[in-house]
Amino acid sequence: MRILGLDSSGLVAGVAVTENDVLLAEYTTDYKKTHSQTLLPMLDELRKMIDLDLDTIDAIAVASGPGSFTGLRIGSATAKGLGLALGKPIVEVPTLEGLAWNLWGTDRLVCPLMDARREQVYSAVYEFQSEGEGFRLLNLTEQMPINIIELTEKINDLKREVIFLGDGLPVYLSKIREHIAVPFRLAPSGCNRQRAACVAALGAVYYAQGKYVEAAAHQPEYLRKSQAERENP
Amino acid sequence: MRILGLDSSGLVAGVAVTENDVLLAEYTTDYKKTHSQTLLPMLDELRKMIDLDLDTIDAIAVASGPGSFTGLRIGSATAKGLGLALGKPIVEVPTLEGLAWNLWGTDRLVCPLMDARREQVYSAVYEFQSEGEGFRLLNLTEQMPINIIELTEKINDLKREVIFLGDGLPVYLSKIREHIAVPFRLAPSGCNRQRAACVAALGAVYYAQGKYVEAAAHQPEYLRKSQAERENP
Repeated sequence: MRILGLDSSGLVAGVAVTENDVLLAEYTTDYKKTHSQTLLPMLDELRKMIDLDLDTIDAIAVASGPGSFTGLRIGSATAKGLGLALGKPIVEVPTLEGLAWNLWGTDRLVCPLMDARREQVYSAVYEFQSEGEGFRLLNLTEQMPINIIELTEKINDLKREVIFLGDGLPVYLSKIREHIAVPFRLAPSGCNRQRAACVAALGAVYYAQGKYVEAAAHQPEYLRKSQAERENP
Repeated sequence: MRILGLDSSGLVAGVAVTENDVLLAEYTTDYKKTHSQTLLPMLDELRKMIDLDLDTIDAIAVASGPGSFTGLRIGSATAKGLGLALGKPIVEVPTLEGLAWNLWGTDRLVCPLMDARREQVYSAVYEFQSEGEGFRLLNLTEQMPINIIELTEKINDLKREVIFLGDGLPVYLSKIREHIAVPFRLAPSGCNRQRAACVAALGAVYYAQGKYVEAAAHQPEYLRKSQAERENP
């Protein structure tokens, strides 16, 4: 099974191709360019480097939200365009699940944080559960916009060690340190931000379970209204 | 601290740039092209995409072995060339440590396997130990060429659950299943092969500890003699 993974939900732009248990290629940037300048050129570059015929992919997995409105729209538009042109289905991978997948194999709780501004993060709490010779990702909460202190209290109630990651971490680390009552860790570079390889790996799991949509039906999951919608209801 | 990571020790060619806790960019391919066709073009492409001035890096971290003779030589030659031209030091990251770093945060033993042919693998056994708000990688064995059954027996003696990864895994999985007596897991795509981001992350740790060499002094660590040397002693 060959899956194309795309993630432009945050500052990172990422493209990856997996084939069964092997990552054939991945290209990731975390840079101030807009995703419209990076995502498709990166895919095109990667496609040439590994002589990839896009017709050979089975599905397109995309980080489907939450995330930045513009980022999600660029990711979804790219996935829909490719899906329509190639006649391939889209697997919608919740952004925070893709982030949590970075820490595959840990016994600790995993808590990805995306900065949602105004003392809020997009977050969820996960753990990895045994499944065959691997693990499956289990969500202990839904994806949610939540005040950072309220989130810390929720985690305290779980009374387990937790690993934090995501672009919300540097923003709210001092608040976390102030309010956290359980042991915690901070994921290092290379496993603390979005990776298209994680989106593709989870996409392969969901595709095998039949969880995918036609390209035309795909919509990102913003979780909150945009600033413009909030201010002009 | 800005680190350039390079890994061409196996089938994967990888280039990454980290800045403190953030992965600025990573490009990975696992494809039949030789590393001389991929490694430098990938670095050049990535450099342009993130407007990277190579003079701003602090050190070059390279997967220094074990691995394929040709792959290691291409990685080392690239690192030395860049290091000499830019006047930057080289951090030698043991290939198997870089592989193990993929599973940052697990409580289980980590056992990377690289196919060394003739029923042998290059391997070592690692675990992650608490250090501050993160973990450090501890090697329970040195890197070694070892017969796959002998390795399985060593792991059985440790009486702990283990996660396997690496390109040696598909080659020797049936032998492992036959001889293993402890619970085991297989790392999935995205965290089961070499990543330059892992080499850069470990490189940053070693660079901060003062563990680096001048470019001219760098040599890869083959662990075994080449086939030509073995046959013509």
